[in-house]
This record gives sequence, structure tokens and C-alpha cells, in this order.
Amino acid sequence: MSKLVPPHGSNTLKPLALTDSALNAELNKAKSLPKITCSSREEGDIIMLGIGGFTPLNGFMNKADWQGVCDNMTMENGLFWPIPITFSTSDETVKAGDEITIVSGKTGTVVATMMVDEKYTIDKTHECEMVYKTTEMAHPGVAMVMAQGKYNLAGQIKVLSDGGFPEKYSDLYMTPMQTRAYFKDKGWSTVAAFQTRNPMHRSHEYLAKIAVEICDGVMIHSVLGGLKAGDIPATVRSEAIATLIKNYFVDDTILQSGYPLDMRYAGPREALLHALFRQNYGCSHLIVGRDHAGVDDYYGPFDAHNIFDEIESDTLITQPLKIDWTFWCHKCASMASMKTCPHEAKDRVLLSGTKVRKMLSEGEDLPSTFSRPEVANVLQAYYASIKDEDKVEIKMSGHSAK
Amino acid sequence: MSKLVPPHGSNTLKPLALTDSALNAELNKAKSLPKITCSSREEGDIIMLGIGGFTPLNGFMNKADWQGVCDNMTMENGLFWPIPITFSTSDETVKAGDEITIVSGKTGTVVATMMVDEKYTIDKTHECEMVYKTTEMAHPGVAMVMAQGKYNLAGQIKVLSDGGFPEKYSDLYMTPMQTRAYFKDKGWSTVAAFQTRNPMHRSHEYLAKIAVEICDGVMIHSVLGGLKAGDIPATVRSEAIATLIKNYFVDDTILQSGYPLDMRYAGPREALLHALFRQNYGCSHLIVGRDHAGVDDYYGPFDAHNIFDEIESDTLITQPLKIDWTFWCHKCASMASMKTCPHEAKDRVLLSGTKVRKMLSEGEDLPSTFSRPEVANVLQAYYASIKDEDKVEIKMSGHSAK
Repeated sequence: MSKLVPPHGSNTLKPLALTDSALNAELNKAKSLPKITCSSREEGDIIMLGIGGFTPLNGFMNKADWQGVCDNMTMENGLFWPIPITFSTSDETVKAGDEITIVSGKTGTVVATMMVDEKYTIDKTHECEMVYKTTEMAHPGVAMVMAQGKYNLAGQIKVLSDGGFPEKYSDLYMTPMQTRAYFKDKGWSTVAAFQTRNPMHRSHEYLAKIAVEICDGVMIHSVLGGLKAGDIPATVRSEAIATLIKNYFVDDTILQSGYPLDMRYAGPREALLHALFRQNYGCSHLIVGRDHAGVDDYYGPFDAHNIFDEIESDTLITQPLKIDWTFWCHKCASMASMKTCPHEAKDRVLLSGTKVRKMLSEGEDLPSTFSRPEVANVLQAYYASIKDEDKVEIKMSGHSAK
Repeated sequence: MSKLVPPHGSNTLKPLALTDSALNAELNKAKSLPKITCSSREEGDIIMLGIGGFTPLNGFMNKADWQGVCDNMTMENGLFWPIPITFSTSDETVKAGDEITIVSGKTGTVVATMMVDEKYTIDKTHECEMVYKTTEMAHPGVAMVMAQGKYNLAGQIKVLSDGGFPEKYSDLYMTPMQTRAYFKDKGWSTVAAFQTRNPMHRSHEYLAKIAVEICDGVMIHSVLGGLKAGDIPATVRSEAIATLIKNYFVDDTILQSGYPLDMRYAGPREALLHALFRQNYGCSHLIVGRDHAGVDDYYGPFDAHNIFDEIESDTLITQPLKIDWTFWCHKCASMASMKTCPHEAKDRVLLSGTKVRKMLSEGEDLPSTFSRPEVANVLQAYYASIKDEDKVEIKMSGHSAK
């Protein structure tokens, strides 16, 4: 009988989205409230709060929570949380006690209402140092924090939008309630999440299949929110992954779905957040590859592995499956990693991201030991469809889940 | 920093073997005590008690323990234990209150002394039904129970022998204290045990490598005690495994060692015992393949997986890594299992044990997708060395850890 992990810090999911008449009434009220615009990242967080992906949060964090999360990954009430979930504005008039309407900066639609409990300023540099381990503006997560407004607003929210995800990704988008129902229906108890923002080559397939071998099922879980410039678009990525699944996975042990957050690229801290919200989705494990959720060289390749050893073992129920750098080895005659292959670099199929992009752009075939031909075909078609000047920007991870 | 699982039901290992002057004094005393002979299985259990592999037991079980273990896998004091650890005799004169010397039935040497607390009879058929799920004498575990003496003797023991294992298997034999020290020295915290009584083909290598990918290390742990007729001898098996390790594993993530028990072939109940004593050896995981510790068709292929779901999740700290039937698939171009390969039987390399034995006996090469050539060479040399009439008896599992 299926017995899934409980949500984080709660026996039940706590979705903050209103429905039906409550939704209509709140949307009506929202019209008359002062409007504050949210950033793309904030909108993703709101949608995630709406579907219960950030259970048990009931809104945006106050200053004490922000400080505790930055410094000790712990909220004022003692709850483990690795990255601040905050809402900012530069509006000088809004104040504690106000009720406001939060409007999408991308689409102008109403996404939530908020009862403002606290208006506070933060030391952005401190947040970046603690969470991102850098204050360089070249880091996309740092740039997001630095671009925030002068103030943070804390308080409970009511979520009034689904962010358009169910419509835009009708085959892919699932809420934590939906994934939990799916897992139960399949009879799965142990489910590993495979986090990805990239198409899957054989190395990624290998990571997912290791997890399939020891769990009841694997959920390939794609970022559907904002990415940095040059990442492969979600539609192309999901088509490539669907092709891989169709040809190389067993239907009954695999699910592809997506979630609404923007990537923060916070590396180890984000790996913890990835495990935390996968617990809400019902996953018992998170596959953590090399340089998980990292960007450029800001983090060591195994920082995201090691951080799980730095928290108490019962902090998260969802546990990491830590896997090393993987590749095809001719002498092993199989996929392998630095931990399982004793052979030399010359025996291994190692292609840089730059090399892979070049080969795909020029319509050249990738080795079948690197990428399944069916997957490479999807990517070649995509590269052929985009303008030449865009090609240089496309970045793909060749080796590990990121 | 290495942080290993604690022993079963205890914070420390409880080896019952005496050493140095205590050993000499007890050996002297043993000379004057009444002597009772033990079977091969009982001797293995005594050696295991001696090295702390059966921590926290302090000797052989009494009737209440026997009953509780048969019926509920629970001893009188509430401790989880899946298979009775009992000592039998047909001696009519020995009685509760006596102190006895236990002598090896194989070698005649003194192996232990025992303070007899209780002399009792058991319903052997009940034990077989509960533990082995059959009373057929063709089952080697049933035959062992039925061959026991009329009475069981319960009581604390002092172990006075190492069973000759350290000498006979100097490179291979390690006590739980030694494996724990080895794991700590390597910096391992998560260690999976791979139980085997067979040489390792690619399917077994695949099981072990899945575990290497997600744990700090894997201990290939061979039965060095008694096997049923036709199993490959430990010396040949360990040479084949050493060859595999040398050519296809990374030194820093693998250890081959052995333990002194006889196989009981109790399938699911023995899988639980295998996990229990691996916890004492410091292993956080036990690889449980298809028909683990089974024999012939007495157990369903996944009975040993399912039994772990029938016990409370905190009963054992050491957790199973449950893996399905594995094989090479040409379309996957990799090792795979029924859970990861969506292709057809014709795409898979499946050889029966009978076919493999025939090919090896006739010096024919096994496909490299089934067995590493270096390993097949060791086995071919062994088959060439044994008498023809013995060959038909040799039994090898082609597909799964048993």
C-alpha cells in the first residue's frame, strides 16, 4: 500500500490558493486594494505557495524569519527553511496593517492579496553572502536579490492565480496534491525526484535509472519558471524528455512533470530547498548530482552533497541520492561515475557543453554513448529553428543534473 | 566524518569471544566440563556470536524467545529477531544449571562453554512452517531443523574459538569491529552490503554499482560457512570476485570480505537476518535482489523485498536496497532491470544457470554482456580442474544476488 512521506513540517498540504466563490469574492475585493507589483521570482513563489509546494508557509517571511533563515536556515518558530521566501517593494506608502493586492510584473494580472504584518529593510549583501556565498552581480541569484525593492513586506497571503501554468503546460504541470494522488494511484511509496532545467542525455538518464532501480518510481521534475538567458526552453526540454521516456523508460516507474519556480542558482542552499519542496510533492528522495543548482564556478562540485551532512538527519524526511560525475566508459562498457569506473580519461566519453552545442548547431550526430539519437534529433531540430545569433547563448549541461 | 549505523539493539558491539588469559582459563575449565557436539550451522552461529555479529544476543535462545521469534519475529524482551538462534542436543543427561563445553562436530575442537538455563523441546514442524514456509525435507534449511537433536539448550555462552576463519581466509575474513574500523578509516558513513554465495557476473556487478553510486562504499560480503552441495566453493568465488574488483571497481569504494555463517536458505526471513547482522558490521544498507537467500521455488521472487514492508520501519536501521531482475539489454545498450528496460525479451541477454554451467564446463566463452571475460576465465579454470562427475552438481545463479 502506498505510504508517502508527509509534507514539510505539517501533516497536510497547505495550499494558499482560493477556489470557487471564495476566489471570486477575493478577486472582487482585490480591485479596491492598493496594488504592488511582484517580480518573476516572487510570482513563482506565490504560485508555489498557492499549490502547497511551500507547505507549511502561510505567506512571506518577516524580518526574524529572514534573519534566521539566512544565518541558521531556521525560521523564528524553529522550522527548517534554507532560502528566504520574501516579497519586496520600493513603495513608500504601504505600511504594516495594510491589505494589498499583488500584481504580476510580467502580465499585470492579480496573483494574490496580502495582509501586511511587517515592513522591514534587509542587508541584501548579507543575504547574498549567506545564501549565495558570493556578492558578485554576475551571479543570477545575487542579481535578483540586489534588484529587489528597498523594503520587504511580510504577511499571510491568499493566492488568486495559477500563473497560467495549467493551461500553458497542460500535460506537464502538476500540483503537490496531484503528484501525491498519482503516486498513490501507482502504488508508489518511495519516489525520487530528478530536478532538471536541461534536456536529458545518457548521463541524466543514468542518474534517473539508478533511482528507479531502488525506488518505486522517479519523477522527472522540470523548472517551468524563469531561467537564465541561454537555458533550453521548457517546451523543447520537455519534448526531448518525453522522447527519452517513450523509448528508454518503463511507463510504470516514471513520471515527467514540472513546477512553477524560477531558478535561483543558489547551489547547495537551493539543493536543500529542492529536497524540501519535493517532500511536499510526495517524494522520498531527491537525486543530487554534481554541482546541483549551481552556476558557473560559484560552488564546488560536491557542495550540494555535503550540505546535507551539515543539517540534522531528521530535518528533512526527503533524503538526497548523492551521485558523482557520470559518463560512458568504453572499458566498463556501461555508464559509470568517478566512484564506479577505475579506468582512464581516454576510455570515457566526455564532451564539453560548448562542444555539444556546436555539434547540435551544425547538425552533427552526437555519439550514442553520450545522447540517445531520438533525443539528439529533438535538439537538432530546435537548433535548426533558432536564429544563428541566439545559438551561442544556448547552454547545456553535458554531465550532471543541475 | 564517518558516522556508522549503531549495532542492533545496542550502542556497542557485544562479541562473546574471550581473549588472552580469560580465554586460557576458560579453555582449561572446559576440559573438565561435559561435552556436547554442535552442528555446522550451530558452530557458525557460535563464531558469529563470538565476533559480535549477532549483537546483542548473549547466547542461545530459550523457549519463550524461540516461540516469539517463530511467531512474531520478536524475542521475550521485545527485541526484533527473524530466525531462531538455537542449540540442540539429544543428550538426556544434561540439565538446566549445568555448565557444558560445546565441541565442533566437524573438527572436534572446543568452540564454547555454556551455562545451561533451560532445556526444552520444540515443535520442529512449527519452526519450519513459520520460518521456512515449508516442511519439505528437500529444503536444505528444513532438513537442518529436522536433523536437530530432541532438545534445545538455552543459555549464555563464552566463545573460545574463531572457527579457523582468520587463518583459512586471511585476506577475506573480517569481524564487525574490523569492518567498522575499515569503514571509518575510509571515511564511509553509508555502506551497502552485497550478500553473495556466488561469483559475480555483470548482473551482480550492476547491483553492487548501483549501491556504490548512492552510498559511500559497498562491502561484497561472502558466505564462508556451509553451503548446499553444488554451490561454488568460497576460494574460487572470492578469486573471481577479486578479479572483478581489480578490473572494474574503484578501490576506494569497494571491499570484499566474508562472514562465518552457514546459509539457511530461509528466503525472506533470512533477508531480514542478513540486514540485521549487516547492521552489526556497520552497513547502512543491504542490497536485496530477486529471490534473496532463496532456494529452488520455495519463495516468490520478491517475497524478500516485501517482508521489509511488513515490519515497522524503525525495527532495523539498516535498510534494504530492493532491486529487480537485472540483465544486459541491447536496445538500452546497458545493464537494466524489469523496472528500467521497456524493451522485449529478445533484446535482452538472458542465460539460464544450466546453460552458463554447460558453457563454462565446455570451455566456451560467455558473452561479455553476461560475464566479464576476466571472471569467466577464473570459472573456466575451476571447471576444468574438477572431475567431470562433479560438474553437474555445480549450481550458479545467473541473474540475481541470492
